[in-house]
Amino acid sequence: MPTAVIKYTNGMQFVGQSGTGHAIVMDTDAEFGGANTGMRPMELLLVGVGSCSGMDIVSVLKKKRQKLTGLEVRVDGKKAEEYPQKYTHISIEFIVKGKGLSEDAVKRAVDLSMDKYCSVKATLEGSAEIAFSYKIVED
Amino acid sequence: MPTAVIKYTNGMQFVGQSGTGHAIVMDTDAEFGGANTGMRPMELLLVGVGSCSGMDIVSVLKKKRQKLTGLEVRVDGKKAEEYPQKYTHISIEFIVKGKGLSEDAVKRAVDLSMDKYCSVKATLEGSAEIAFSYKIVED
Repeated sequence: MPTAVIKYTNGMQFVGQSGTGHAIVMDTDAEFGGANTGMRPMELLLVGVGSCSGMDIVSVLKKKRQKLTGLEVRVDGKKAEEYPQKYTHISIEFIVKGKGLSEDAVKRAVDLSMDKYCSVKATLEGSAEIAFSYKIVED
Repeated sequence: MPTAVIKYTNGMQFVGQSGTGHAIVMDTDAEFGGANTGMRPMELLLVGVGSCSGMDIVSVLKKKRQKLTGLEVRVDGKKAEEYPQKYTHISIEFIVKGKGLSEDAVKRAVDLSMDKYCSVKATLEGSAEIAFSYKIVED
């Protein structure tokens, strides 16, 4: 079962430790009493969906013996104006770099992640509409 | 608008940089080709909801001039067995430490976060049932 313990340090800074033993610092802007020493909690969701889907795509492309040389995932989130300001829209762009990548293989990897595998995407889409696109760059 | 760029490094390791300029490493288990160099993407959601609600509670208790000396947020997530294995249940426990804290003030701070302010909780509860509790510890 995934777990985390998040401890208050000072100001608005928190340190989170996950069940697998890794730690990160979260903080907020000066206008909310923070000192910008770490990511905003809402940013973690975007990093989460980008890394989750990125791992799926790397995994599928490796299985398909594609020569992947790089992958960049760009994620934008749009929040509701009213509190609690949840995400209403998230857009994800995959920039897939490699040598002679098959467009079919890339499309299939992206679709498998978005439709079937990505747990973070599946969790977030309970609230946010999620759009995605991909671009292939020859290395 | 919150943004993030997540780059593939090697193995199953990704480095995510958020719009506010902070970076974190994500990775996975050896059984999925990873080397456990960083948090799992799904763990980020738990750290996100714990730090988001923690910041709300610190903020409300400060406004209420409560003598808060510590706050620990423990978060557990339960995933669906079927792919895409989204979170179905998340439980959050707040351990609020201070000198002569008012139980009313703590309850109000927790409720305001859970019902009104916490953007991460509001986003995740589109998919997961979220339960919470709190405990006050005299310092």
